[in-house]
Amino acid sequence: MFFKPFMLLCVFAALRFTAAAQTWIWYPGDYEIWLSNQMQNRRTERGTFYPVFWKADSHYPLVDFHREFNLAQPETVAICAEGRYNVKLDGKAFPGTPQAIEVPAGKHKINIKVFNQATPPAVFVKGITIRSDSSWQVTFEDKEWIDETGKASDLSATIFKHAGNWNFNDPAAMPSAYRLPVAPVAATSAEKTAGGLLVDFGKETFGFVKLHGVKGKGTVSLYYGESREEALDTAASETFDRITIDQLNASDTINPHSKALRYVNIVADGNVQLDHASLLYEYAPLEDKGSFRCSDGAINKIYDVARYTLHLSTREFFIDGIKRDRWIWSGDAYQSYLMNYYLMNDNETVKRTIYALRGKDPVTSHINTIMDYTFYWFMGVYDYYLYSGDKDFLVQNYDRMKTLMDFVWNRRNKNGLLEGLPGDWVFIDWASGLSKKGEISFEQLLFARGLETMALCADLADRKQDAAQYKAAAAALKQKLFSIYWSNEAKALVHSRVNGQPTENVTRYANMFAIFFGYFSEEQKKEVKASVLLNKNVPEITTPYMRFYELEALCALGEQNYVLQEMKNYWGGMLKLGATSFWEEYDPSKKGAAHYAMYGRKYGKSLCHAWGASPLYLLGKYYLGVKPTAPGYAQYEVKPVLGGLKWMEGKVPTPAGNIELYCSEKEIKITSPAGTGKLIIASKIKPVCKEGEVVSKGNNVYELTMEKNKEYRILYKAI
Amino acid sequence: MFFKPFMLLCVFAALRFTAAAQTWIWYPGDYEIWLSNQMQNRRTERGTFYPVFWKADSHYPLVDFHREFNLAQPETVAICAEGRYNVKLDGKAFPGTPQAIEVPAGKHKINIKVFNQATPPAVFVKGITIRSDSSWQVTFEDKEWIDETGKASDLSATIFKHAGNWNFNDPAAMPSAYRLPVAPVAATSAEKTAGGLLVDFGKETFGFVKLHGVKGKGTVSLYYGESREEALDTAASETFDRITIDQLNASDTINPHSKALRYVNIVADGNVQLDHASLLYEYAPLEDKGSFRCSDGAINKIYDVARYTLHLSTREFFIDGIKRDRWIWSGDAYQSYLMNYYLMNDNETVKRTIYALRGKDPVTSHINTIMDYTFYWFMGVYDYYLYSGDKDFLVQNYDRMKTLMDFVWNRRNKNGLLEGLPGDWVFIDWASGLSKKGEISFEQLLFARGLETMALCADLADRKQDAAQYKAAAAALKQKLFSIYWSNEAKALVHSRVNGQPTENVTRYANMFAIFFGYFSEEQKKEVKASVLLNKNVPEITTPYMRFYELEALCALGEQNYVLQEMKNYWGGMLKLGATSFWEEYDPSKKGAAHYAMYGRKYGKSLCHAWGASPLYLLGKYYLGVKPTAPGYAQYEVKPVLGGLKWMEGKVPTPAGNIELYCSEKEIKITSPAGTGKLIIASKIKPVCKEGEVVSKGNNVYELTMEKNKEYRILYKAI
Repeated sequence: MFFKPFMLLCVFAALRFTAAAQTWIWYPGDYEIWLSNQMQNRRTERGTFYPVFWKADSHYPLVDFHREFNLAQPETVAICAEGRYNVKLDGKAFPGTPQAIEVPAGKHKINIKVFNQATPPAVFVKGITIRSDSSWQVTFEDKEWIDETGKASDLSATIFKHAGNWNFNDPAAMPSAYRLPVAPVAATSAEKTAGGLLVDFGKETFGFVKLHGVKGKGTVSLYYGESREEALDTAASETFDRITIDQLNASDTINPHSKALRYVNIVADGNVQLDHASLLYEYAPLEDKGSFRCSDGAINKIYDVARYTLHLSTREFFIDGIKRDRWIWSGDAYQSYLMNYYLMNDNETVKRTIYALRGKDPVTSHINTIMDYTFYWFMGVYDYYLYSGDKDFLVQNYDRMKTLMDFVWNRRNKNGLLEGLPGDWVFIDWASGLSKKGEISFEQLLFARGLETMALCADLADRKQDAAQYKAAAAALKQKLFSIYWSNEAKALVHSRVNGQPTENVTRYANMFAIFFGYFSEEQKKEVKASVLLNKNVPEITTPYMRFYELEALCALGEQNYVLQEMKNYWGGMLKLGATSFWEEYDPSKKGAAHYAMYGRKYGKSLCHAWGASPLYLLGKYYLGVKPTAPGYAQYEVKPVLGGLKWMEGKVPTPAGNIELYCSEKEIKITSPAGTGKLIIASKIKPVCKEGEVVSKGNNVYELTMEKNKEYRILYKAI
Repeated sequence: MFFKPFMLLCVFAALRFTAAAQTWIWYPGDYEIWLSNQMQNRRTERGTFYPVFWKADSHYPLVDFHREFNLAQPETVAICAEGRYNVKLDGKAFPGTPQAIEVPAGKHKINIKVFNQATPPAVFVKGITIRSDSSWQVTFEDKEWIDETGKASDLSATIFKHAGNWNFNDPAAMPSAYRLPVAPVAATSAEKTAGGLLVDFGKETFGFVKLHGVKGKGTVSLYYGESREEALDTAASETFDRITIDQLNASDTINPHSKALRYVNIVADGNVQLDHASLLYEYAPLEDKGSFRCSDGAINKIYDVARYTLHLSTREFFIDGIKRDRWIWSGDAYQSYLMNYYLMNDNETVKRTIYALRGKDPVTSHINTIMDYTFYWFMGVYDYYLYSGDKDFLVQNYDRMKTLMDFVWNRRNKNGLLEGLPGDWVFIDWASGLSKKGEISFEQLLFARGLETMALCADLADRKQDAAQYKAAAAALKQKLFSIYWSNEAKALVHSRVNGQPTENVTRYANMFAIFFGYFSEEQKKEVKASVLLNKNVPEITTPYMRFYELEALCALGEQNYVLQEMKNYWGGMLKLGATSFWEEYDPSKKGAAHYAMYGRKYGKSLCHAWGASPLYLLGKYYLGVKPTAPGYAQYEVKPVLGGLKWMEGKVPTPAGNIELYCSEKEIKITSPAGTGKLIIASKIKPVCKEGEVVSKGNNVYELTMEKNKEYRILYKAI
């Protein structure tokens, strides 16, 4: 309504601004939730609007921003806002809606209060010292009532948060106007078909199709295909757009909707003619910080396609895949976070995605309605802290973590376990015949991990009592789940308990998670490796989603050689079928276009799915072997494992910069800009290093403590 | 963003519609909350935006609407929506965004899912049998996930509500476009003053000032005054608007903001000239159903001014007053509901106001931040049910009633009582020196009434367990509060307990409420009447707000003669000072323009405040003596009390129509279209009635049971 005029004001105001130490700010999570609504409601299925089926939340339409400043000199402060606003200095309002105020020297409190129903209230403030940034405090209820004498309340007990922000450092770059950038891309080939023009962009991509030299009157239909088959099958392609054309003279037309495609089949009716088509490639402008190269060309190719897959699936948020949902799914996003830490290491996309997934109170369902996805969300918050060291985000989110865990806690059955209640989607994985009945071991395992995570976070948020309660609850649940599900006959956790009886069914899920959660004894780990992970009689996993964890578990057990072969077979298998990005599901036993089917639809499967990119994570964490052991890489571990490669080299991002590593069968070279690292080397002979002291830890394991910004060269012979 | 195109579609679609048995529908409460945000954020103070200080909630941006129908014949169904939408028949989506669908004969389920961030998702559906109305079901989370075969979930446990609606029965009348109607009004006089032109509209009014024959270049300032003093005091008037003029030829200009005023002082700078000014009076188009006339002209005048006061303060919602806040305050609104039942009896404004006050979960503060106002909200819900018989509204709101009571329950201190915690505004009344410290008897009394109300509502919502718990909690609290606060020395409930010690301070609040709540014994009532209500040593009440309850308590004690004099003194006192609407506060001891001051500001007081209109309620309920004793007037009581009047006559609205009553010292005439009534007559001799049987109840009280739609004439002699 009234926010448009302010947009103009801000553009004018921009002329007066210079440097960019200030940024647009908002209520933390609000812009993120709003932006996710915009993105997630762009989905169409064959032209029909296809929104999410869970609750969509909104920003607070009325927000107060404030901060105290101490000015040595008086200063002029320029103000922009998205919404209707007022400005107060030391509790006294300025007349009207000032675009600039004069603030005298001394200690002052500035408040800006903004109403905006349609888009998130946001402000941009720039003086010399008074500038908007994340140190400002915000609330959706200031409770500043006055009594009959006009005296303001001083008992408001208002909860303030630190302002949210991103990178909108220009007053003209209004947060609500944000769009991903685009770049023009030419087609690699085009062929006339019976019905139209089939344009090939040579690989999976995403963007706005541009039609060149269009004229005539009629409709142009754009049938998108991740495969050639899909684009040509106009009756079954998952997505299409139609453009109405009515122009005498040839000109270019850009389709207003961005879509996933490799192929577009352009079918015109009426007398419409066109010259050719190109694409405005739409992308999130994130640079790679991490890298990986090795002696095996097939692995390098897998890494590159995984990299491209993750980039395509990283948009305003980490989404599932680019063709179909383009929604934010917690289980998918959790894997993207982990891959991101080894590639782009972009904190902002992680935080945005976490905010958007959580939404707001009250909690009315599991995240995405899925029980397992709720627990990945908790784990994602803590992991983010571990990789980034950003404690403030965790602390600001603690209350929403707690209310979500309250929701879970109140859904326990009489045995204190979780089973699917009406409204709970027990997902686990796409796998036919997978039982979701009764008390499933996998869900209890995630629940225990969720409680452990809450204990860690409560401690960090200085909620000591909560921390103690969560810790005790997690320990009790772990004990209970082992007493119920561990089978000495099967040498494994069984899948579920139904009507009080543990089933005999063994699946991989709980077993592989228990390995990298560190829940098994050494004895159990060995048993499970043989009885489950390397046992072909236990149903195989056919999604890259769960292969992520399966291979992680194997890596955690030191099976890098085996995993390398699995990667080459599984991801290499997709490449052999012509994949230019990795898929939502891959079953090597299928043939031809049958690979494209899913959900009972011929082209239902997504051929560019974030969870297909897990080699990024596996290669960084379990081959280069780099991981933080204290928040933000204040401490970290490097445990390189060649796993059959002759050499490998790569970079792993940390908040301080990249850890750089080269490793061959004889030599390791490493530098790191981060805290204190431990290089752990398995070697038959004692490694030699001039730059540091190599200490034996027994069993052919050696350790070198690394200082930052120093290059180490170690000569060794791997076992 | 994208809702504008749909607006156009709907206008076109309108051409095909005829009759109006269908209406725009939305998620119940969502439009109401959205509209309240629009209204409440119109407040300005001397040109500065002045928003509320509590949490503003939003509509759900994504809503699914559905209903099942059984069609004898196939039919065409036209669809309009505010937002982006899809339409499904029996779970299968139609392509695109259909404006009309064909539905075959038979049993079908139709779903429409709408996304709209800026304004509430709403739909308007019209076929022959398929039509949108409040029987449709809505949800903000349909949880319709599908499995890997494409099968939809059938375990969603989704909570559906009945759709909300009002009177938008035309597809072109989009809910978000709603504006109150206006009517042109001429000024009664205008005078040139030193600074400008002072225009008088003769009485308090509200609307958009229209300037006629404006030309020149400069700024026109409109200084509004509820009093002449305020309009002329350009440095201190509470409200003003400024209009920029730049036109060579004279034309008319309408100020875009509607304001309260009797006077407007028009001050132009530059070379701006204007001819004269008028007003577009903005009003809620509600007709009076109730009425009151009597032998006392002063009372008739008070009734008329009260009527006008309530009409002015009844806008999109029941607001406090028209000049300043124009906000929805629960304590003020509660009184408007009660007055409304005796005047306009408009259910829609009551429901809208209740929805808007409650907002959404989570509850983060008391309603309007005020402890007492939370309890009026509960009472308002039950009263609405009692007067209207609308059980569905109560049942649909039960969950929000419960979460609000949970909030209250969790704020009890170790004694199980409420005292102001940080963030709680203990208001009670505007009265200087009124203590808000410790455990205040008035708040415990309201808390007990709130729990009793919850017990009644839980029972109606079929939550029997809740009902039993609330009933027990209310009884325990009542017992506790009498044991703490009742003083045998003071013969009254004392004001508070501080540090475990009851104070000796006696105030009117708890004592007068305990009377009409029926909490006192007959003995206590008599004691309190003398020791508190008629005791001039107990601090007097200076707001019409609390005078409402004080006079109600006295009426409940049979003191109508005394109350009639009080009305004439107090409300008559305002009229003698020239009031054309009743005030927020009136202290007869003040002089001249001092009456206009409040909150430390010269013109801070509102001179048209809803709570000033209580004679509407008192005269209807305690003189005409009409009140429901079962929901929706299925049963009711008429107990006329002349209170010193020679005769009175009036109408009291019920859902079935008006009860009409004439009563003189000798005769009563009454007809009623509603259920079963009891006419209760105090008379020295046995009344005579040909149309019914008069039964003696002892103590000179007689009772006549009335059938509906029958005229009764009773001859009697009042005591």
